[in-house]
Amino acid sequence: METTPRADRARRIADVLRPQILAGAYETLPDERALAADFGASRNAVRDALAVLVAEGLLERRRGVGTVVVGERHRHPLSRLAGLAETLGGTVRNEVRLARPERAPAAVAARLGTDDTIHLERLRYLDDEPLSLDRTYLAGDVGRPLLAADLAGRDVFALIEETTGRPLGTADVTVRVTTADAHTATLLGVPEGAGLFAVERLSRLADGRPVDLEYLLVRGDRLTLHAVLDRR
Amino acid sequence: METTPRADRARRIADVLRPQILAGAYETLPDERALAADFGASRNAVRDALAVLVAEGLLERRRGVGTVVVGERHRHPLSRLAGLAETLGGTVRNEVRLARPERAPAAVAARLGTDDTIHLERLRYLDDEPLSLDRTYLAGDVGRPLLAADLAGRDVFALIEETTGRPLGTADVTVRVTTADAHTATLLGVPEGAGLFAVERLSRLADGRPVDLEYLLVRGDRLTLHAVLDRR
Repeated sequence: METTPRADRARRIADVLRPQILAGAYETLPDERALAADFGASRNAVRDALAVLVAEGLLERRRGVGTVVVGERHRHPLSRLAGLAETLGGTVRNEVRLARPERAPAAVAARLGTDDTIHLERLRYLDDEPLSLDRTYLAGDVGRPLLAADLAGRDVFALIEETTGRPLGTADVTVRVTTADAHTATLLGVPEGAGLFAVERLSRLADGRPVDLEYLLVRGDRLTLHAVLDRR
Repeated sequence: METTPRADRARRIADVLRPQILAGAYETLPDERALAADFGASRNAVRDALAVLVAEGLLERRRGVGTVVVGERHRHPLSRLAGLAETLGGTVRNEVRLARPERAPAAVAARLGTDDTIHLERLRYLDDEPLSLDRTYLAGDVGRPLLAADLAGRDVFALIEETTGRPLGTADVTVRVTTADAHTATLLGVPEGAGLFAVERLSRLADGRPVDLEYLLVRGDRLTLHAVLDRR
């Protein structure tokens, strides 16, 4: 069953290097000779593997320096319900592209239990670089006070808890993969076709009432999701 | 702050329809007139939104039928540690592309605590369609008995528990987004550039010893990940 064409050999190296690079294990990659020894592979196989990772935008070849790691990813836990600024630090800012009362489409109304909603669209920046495009529908009574709040600087979760005086409880999260169309790519500052997380998140107040339905498009080159799973 | 060019209006519809489609809410989409009424939008905006979703490969226009949903996604919980066949039913088969003892590269050895490993590469099919390309490094003593086991038909988790007689405990999971290079695309049966989940998963026996390090490339058009998050 074993097949070992050239592309397979390169893949075996790239698959192991990719998460190392993304986890921040390297600033500059070890040279080809060292990698070949580590992987018990030929230097040609290492070169092919690095070419795959350069094409994915994870590495860049720099003359006189070697192969360097491009970009940085931020870790987001998939265990606790938390906003971006809470999780990643205080360097988040939001460009508010839309904030208005709106009769929700049926799919949204069914999940929030009302078609009286506040519709927010925010382009979120982390360290002055776009991270995600967030579409949020809030139940009208919960969302209306937020129209006067600091939507540019604060997480919606924190604002909901402050204005309602009640804590949030749980959220159902669905994570999908998509790629950026031309318009999304322009907004998020990535090439057309770049990989994105498409996250749908329905958050409830502690009493179980759903109040916040979000559709997030998050740059795949800037975020990783983490979870601890249990066998039982 | 509000900007509403044509592309923004289309996006507002596409962002809400996308997860509905992926969750299996429709076989055939409601017609443009009905969608326009539901979203309080023009038919032009609906048409633009559907064009975005056709380009993403979620919808197809069929003459005389309308706009139909293409493909189907399988739900995978991000809360319990489970193999593919256990989670998705009995229709999984694996093409074993590699299964051999190997001295692990340093990055793998550091996580498994040994460089004596069994290296598996499997192309996994669900309902006779490729789903993921799984690279697995097993600690040698745990993995060696699996070389004689039914790797084509069974999940590695179940095989580990059977051959060691010990249950698995927890796993650390990291989920990233990547896109398919030409070689991966061919193996997985997707267009070059298609969105993929890149999953790294380190599983431990119940006593805490790490024994199974996996690098999975999973078709983004066939899987969604689900989690319930808690605010506390």
